[in-house]
Amino acid sequence: MEDPAFFCVFPGKQITILPYLCRMLTISQRGNAMPPSPIRKLVPFAEAAKKKGTKVYHLNIGQPDIETPPQILDAVRHADFKVLEYSHSAGNESYRRKLVDYYKKVGIEVDHNQIIITTGGSEAIIFGFMACLDPGDEVIIPEPFYANYNGFAVEAEVVVKPITSSIETGFALPAISEFEKMITPRTKAIVICNPNNPTGYLYSQEEMDTLKQIVIKHNLFLFSDEAYREFAYDGKQISAMQLEGAEQNVILMDTISKRYSACGGRIGAFVTKNKQVLDAAMKFAQARLSPPSFAQILGEAAVDLPENYFDATRAEYLRRRDVLVKRLNAMDGVFCPNPGGAFYAMAKLPIDDSDKFCQWLLESFNHNNATVMLAPATGFYGTKGLGLNEVRLAYVLNVDDLNGAMDCLEAALKVYPGRTK
Amino acid sequence: MEDPAFFCVFPGKQITILPYLCRMLTISQRGNAMPPSPIRKLVPFAEAAKKKGTKVYHLNIGQPDIETPPQILDAVRHADFKVLEYSHSAGNESYRRKLVDYYKKVGIEVDHNQIIITTGGSEAIIFGFMACLDPGDEVIIPEPFYANYNGFAVEAEVVVKPITSSIETGFALPAISEFEKMITPRTKAIVICNPNNPTGYLYSQEEMDTLKQIVIKHNLFLFSDEAYREFAYDGKQISAMQLEGAEQNVILMDTISKRYSACGGRIGAFVTKNKQVLDAAMKFAQARLSPPSFAQILGEAAVDLPENYFDATRAEYLRRRDVLVKRLNAMDGVFCPNPGGAFYAMAKLPIDDSDKFCQWLLESFNHNNATVMLAPATGFYGTKGLGLNEVRLAYVLNVDDLNGAMDCLEAALKVYPGRTK
Repeated sequence: MEDPAFFCVFPGKQITILPYLCRMLTISQRGNAMPPSPIRKLVPFAEAAKKKGTKVYHLNIGQPDIETPPQILDAVRHADFKVLEYSHSAGNESYRRKLVDYYKKVGIEVDHNQIIITTGGSEAIIFGFMACLDPGDEVIIPEPFYANYNGFAVEAEVVVKPITSSIETGFALPAISEFEKMITPRTKAIVICNPNNPTGYLYSQEEMDTLKQIVIKHNLFLFSDEAYREFAYDGKQISAMQLEGAEQNVILMDTISKRYSACGGRIGAFVTKNKQVLDAAMKFAQARLSPPSFAQILGEAAVDLPENYFDATRAEYLRRRDVLVKRLNAMDGVFCPNPGGAFYAMAKLPIDDSDKFCQWLLESFNHNNATVMLAPATGFYGTKGLGLNEVRLAYVLNVDDLNGAMDCLEAALKVYPGRTK
Repeated sequence: MEDPAFFCVFPGKQITILPYLCRMLTISQRGNAMPPSPIRKLVPFAEAAKKKGTKVYHLNIGQPDIETPPQILDAVRHADFKVLEYSHSAGNESYRRKLVDYYKKVGIEVDHNQIIITTGGSEAIIFGFMACLDPGDEVIIPEPFYANYNGFAVEAEVVVKPITSSIETGFALPAISEFEKMITPRTKAIVICNPNNPTGYLYSQEEMDTLKQIVIKHNLFLFSDEAYREFAYDGKQISAMQLEGAEQNVILMDTISKRYSACGGRIGAFVTKNKQVLDAAMKFAQARLSPPSFAQILGEAAVDLPENYFDATRAEYLRRRDVLVKRLNAMDGVFCPNPGGAFYAMAKLPIDDSDKFCQWLLESFNHNNATVMLAPATGFYGTKGLGLNEVRLAYVLNVDDLNGAMDCLEAALKVYPGRTK
């Protein structure tokens, strides 16, 4: 149609306008709805503190300080090729075959054709949402949860239904009856992260069986984010891929980022035995052509790391966890349940508002010219008003620095104007 | 609600069912709607041909055979770091500052804060669609177009409105009046690819000015995919970023994949002077954490390549184009307009159905024990029924191989049972 006239309704009258006068050059509602990173909003305050000469202990982000194994960096450095070509859209076959060995070692039986290499765990989540969910569909996620699930849900126009787990029970899985209260005809999936970011919670065999029952009974997908699989301190992690009878329900979202301290590689994996889901995800993989080639070399080499490679890393994180949790619980009015995995802990603090407190720590406080940067827990809850007196701490610093950070927090809580008790 | 009963209507009667009996474990409608790669569906036939011992000349994909500059691969090999960390979500600042120099050299003035480094050009397209378009919004794209725009549109639930450009005019931009016929109240953007994949068409200054008029008059975004910027043989490429007065409308989607034969690096860029769009895209960038670190090093080193680096590459492609176009037009019943850029050509062939013909070439034909793999043009048209007698040829092989491929095509057209004239 040429210059099609159409109607806009203004209060009280209806007027005819040409479309190019009515149409605005504005971003999408989706772009508006997209949440900014709840952690990064504090970055300017941290930068200002550093400019003033204050040392800032970063317990706010999940960037491990552990060295990337030199032999896997060397695999990239010595890779011999002349053209940096596209790989297969599902990732190099040699890497996928290697990954089968890795998964076997951790008790997961899969075929290389059931694996799509993704650009970080992030893309595995997007593929899962896109392949299984339509706009308006609902996913149930135990909260507090990894804040970026919100972002991926906005991209896919999917509705997140948070189900609250409590710091008092150490963030254990809510009861089946609580899940069933949340299920509506639009519910299509449950998302878990195990071990959990941000709580560090490690799901028990019993809890995994509970999830299995729910997803089978209600025909739901179970998206399982297992980025922290190896970071399990009190017993072994149980993968959703090990839930017998739920093979068609389960989609594993994996990444090498934390496992090998290779966050910048951007290599993850989308794994499922559900052929229909896999075929759909593959079409999304083809559209973006291929995952990054360099870090696939790194990931492939990582499967050959000695069996005991992870022992030292795990021991280091365990030491850190124990220091952190002990220091926190020794502080007046502070409660920190002992996290069984990952490298995060959630702590309840005697404060009015975690966003205000974390900003105050950077803006108005220092202890021996140092302060600590924490993540306010509000960003990890889907339910408004929760997390006001909780913070997430990532124990990605060595024990000395962790102690330095805890000294700051302890001193800060004594003088914080918004202290509640 | 606990086990909420609801109604399903079957022909003739309404019955009450529990939701978990009614809900099916099925993929999304979006997953169903997602188009498979139109090129990859022929891959099994190519593999079968090779198994029979037939040599297959691959003119079907845009994977350049040109060597990645060794000095930029070396930059990655010699990069000195101990932890493969997340980069900034917008990409390393040092790389973005370097890119400002690159863009200046090609006549584009931007600030490093107007650049977000993306995971390939693919992610730049997704960010653009997500930040600017809502489900149901329409984008006008001159057809034939890069087939994966369809896939990204499905992901974003956006409607592609193709506007046909014709092989008879060498795929020149359709007239303004044709665009205005397509514009509805839901139209939000025009997508161009310049130089064009699949046609090789290089837009003239006049055509770019026409696009500028349309997007300004109708308040539309102009998404400009300039992956092949340097591959311009007859005059210089004019960037949409150079359209004065359309600064708020234009979003540049860029990639280093073809420029430096670095397809596997997965590094691109999202560039715009529209702050609102940039801020929205940045939220999508934050959700996926960061672009790949290794290839950012490569991309940064590439900006320092000698000014004449591209001269040899361009000269090589020009030679190939001239051979290809000459050979094609010398064949009886074949017409190939001379493409001004990229490394693709579209040819009209005297055939009944390009999908059938391309499959037949692999399945039932050989010439001196060799055959050629082409991309049927049907996959590049949004309008059903177009492209049946057209194919896309990527001249990514050396002149000897190109001649070998043309020998096959010439011989094939003489014996193809579906020849039309």
